This record gives sequence, structure tokens and C-alpha cells, in this order.
Amino acid sequence: MDSTRQTNSNASKTNKLYERGERTRRGILETSVDIASAEGLEGLTIGRLAKDLGMSKSGLFAHFGSKEDLQIATINIAREIFVEEIVLPIIDMEGGLKKLLAMLENWISYVERNVFRGGCFFFAASAEMDDRPGKVRDFVAELTNAWVIALEDEIKQAISLGEIDKSTDVDLLVFQLHGFVQEANWFYRLHERPEAFDYARKSIQQVLKIYSTKKGMEVLES
Amino acid sequence: MDSTRQTNSNASKTNKLYERGERTRRGILETSVDIASAEGLEGLTIGRLAKDLGMSKSGLFAHFGSKEDLQIATINIAREIFVEEIVLPIIDMEGGLKKLLAMLENWISYVERNVFRGGCFFFAASAEMDDRPGKVRDFVAELTNAWVIALEDEIKQAISLGEIDKSTDVDLLVFQLHGFVQEANWFYRLHERPEAFDYARKSIQQVLKIYSTKKGMEVLES
Repeated sequence: MDSTRQTNSNASKTNKLYERGERTRRGILETSVDIASAEGLEGLTIGRLAKDLGMSKSGLFAHFGSKEDLQIATINIAREIFVEEIVLPIIDMEGGLKKLLAMLENWISYVERNVFRGGCFFFAASAEMDDRPGKVRDFVAELTNAWVIALEDEIKQAISLGEIDKSTDVDLLVFQLHGFVQEANWFYRLHERPEAFDYARKSIQQVLKIYSTKKGMEVLES
Repeated sequence: MDSTRQTNSNASKTNKLYERGERTRRGILETSVDIASAEGLEGLTIGRLAKDLGMSKSGLFAHFGSKEDLQIATINIAREIFVEEIVLPIIDMEGGLKKLLAMLENWISYVERNVFRGGCFFFAASAEMDDRPGKVRDFVAELTNAWVIALEDEIKQAISLGEIDKSTDVDLLVFQLHGFVQEANWFYRLHERPEAFDYARKSIQQVLKIYSTKKGMEVLES
């Protein structure tokens, strides 16, 4: 027997097993991200997840050693989905005010379309974890901070293009824009008021008009 | 023996027991409101609370028959504290723009001063309960809605006094003002950025200037 072929065949078998494992893992995590968005990361126990998936607890333990591992893996998938829904569709777009508007619009739309059963995953995770020190909290803070910085960078880009006035307080503006989308999420999830999305869109336009130059106004009105 | 006196003495004994019971109840609930603000209403089990208070579970069951009863009673105390901190200090103030500003300032200050260990009780409770249908969710929605309506009424009062322009979209304005305070809570709790309160105050002023009449501008600048 050709030992090279045997090795190749083994490698291919391992690969297939690995791929199947990855597919199972992703499937498990898509369920867990949905549970966590609605019922919280703390509600995400291996027992609860096993019941929802009709899997054995020991089968799940093979994928995730602890509740914390499961929580971190779940947040990672939520991040992937966030990037797929909000960032990737506009990855090739030129920077500046138009891209800033697209980032915000994609974010609003992802809440409006209920991409996660429980609304914005990171809004729910933030409120839940903010007072629970540890790895999970730090990871949620790191990711939400990365999104704030991405919005800030786009504002800075718009300033350098002369679309937003250079005297703008970037931290204040990002606080306002970010806050409008979070408020829409809050208002819609708790009070079931879909007009919240319209309010967020109008508020974003209104606030950006305060800071826009003539060139920026053309972008806002286009 | 004078049976009237006996009855009076019994009544007085019952009253004292009742008062002591009420004091105990309030003490228990002040602990539970603190736990719930940081770790969530779902984290508020009778077992957990008994441990924190050094009381027996059966002692707590005498006060609260179920977890749901405990959650509802906890939200009620949170409401009392919210009213004591934010509404009562300005209850006699004349209505209008100045009172609207005071309501928002008291709300910001209550988050800034960490009145609850976990920040704004109702922000945390909203995010946690919004996807858990039932009595507890409905109560949180009812109370947060009452606060939104109180802010709306004050805007309407300011409009009738000629301080805010009568063409103002009241729903949109309350969305913005309410959102700024919630964003400050989010930013401070998760990212530990106390400058969020300054951003909220500046944003409130900035947005109110858009809608204010000349008379309103005088109030804003006073």
C-alpha cells in the first residue's frame, strides 16, 4: 500500500471531520446567538442549549468546555454576523460622509429587519454584562468600542474631505449618532414602536446638518 | 378588663408588627433593587437574595410568594426611588422649558451619582426584559412609557408657553432627548467614560436650540 496515499486519505478524512465539526459548531452558535440576543448571555447555559438543539450535554461539552467559552464563541459569531450585515456590503465604498450615512443606515436596517431575534445583539449584551467584570464583559466592551471608533474614523474622513466642518467635536457627534440608533433599538424592542427607525433617520440627518459644510449638505440632500 | 382597650392594644400590636414587616420588606427590596440593577431581574432569585441578606429562604417566601412577585415588588421600589430622586425635587416647579431641563438634569445626575449600583435601573431592566413576554415586561414598559409621556407633556407645556416652536415634532424631540440620557448611561456603564454626561448635557442644549423660540433661547441661556 502506498503510504503517501494512505496519509493523504487520512488527512482528507480529518479535514472532512474538521469541516463537519466546524459546520456543527457554526449551527450550534447560530442558535446560541439567537437565544442570547433575546434572553441574555447569562441565560445561555449548556443545558439550555442542549435542550433547544436536541443534543446531549456531553456533545456540547466537546465543543465548548465551559459556559464562558460558549459565551465568548457566541459573541464572536454575533460579531461575524454584524460584519456581514453592516460592514461587508459597503467595504469597497469610498470613505466620507456618504459612507458614514451608509454605516448608520445598515445598522438601523439590521435592527429593523430583526437579524437577531432579540434586536441588536450588542445592545442587549452591553446592558447585561456592563456590571459583571470578566472576560465576557471585556470582549463586549472591546467590540462595541471598535464600532464607535469606526464611526469616528469615518467622521474624521468626512472632515478631511471638507464635508464636515473641521471645528466639529468628533466625540460629541459620534455620541449623538450612535445614541440615536441605540434609542431606536430600545424604543422598538420594548415599546414595539417601529416609527423609532424613522425618528433615528431624521435625527441623524438633522444633527449632521448642524456640522456639514456646503459640500456635506450636497451629500445629505443627494 | 376593658375590652375596648384590649382591642386597641391588639390593634396597636398588629400595627407595630405591620410596620416592622414593612420596614423589613423595604430593606429587603433595597438590596434586591441593587442586585437587579447590576445583575438583572432574572438573577434575582429568592435563594440568591436570602444568601445576600443572611435570611432564610422561608423567611423571604413569607414576604414574596414567587420570583415574579419579588421582581414586581423590586421594580416598584425602583420606581419609588426614581420618583424621589428625579421627580419630587422639582414637583412644585412651574411647567415649561426650565422644568423640562430640570427633569433631564436630575435624570442624568441620578445615573452619574450611581444611585443604583448598576446605573439606570430601568435601562438595564428594559434591555433584559424586552423579549420576555409577561407581567414583568409589561410593568417595565408601562413605567418607562410614563416617563416618556411626562417628558412629552413638558415639551407641550413649553410649546403652549411659546418657548418651543409650535411646529415641533414632539415625538421626535422626546426621542432625541430621552436617547441622549440613555446613551450616556450606556457609555458610562460599559466604557467607564464619565465625559458621557457632559456629551448628554451638550446634546440636549444643542437640540433644544433647534426648536426654541426667542423666549426659549433666553431660558436655555439663563
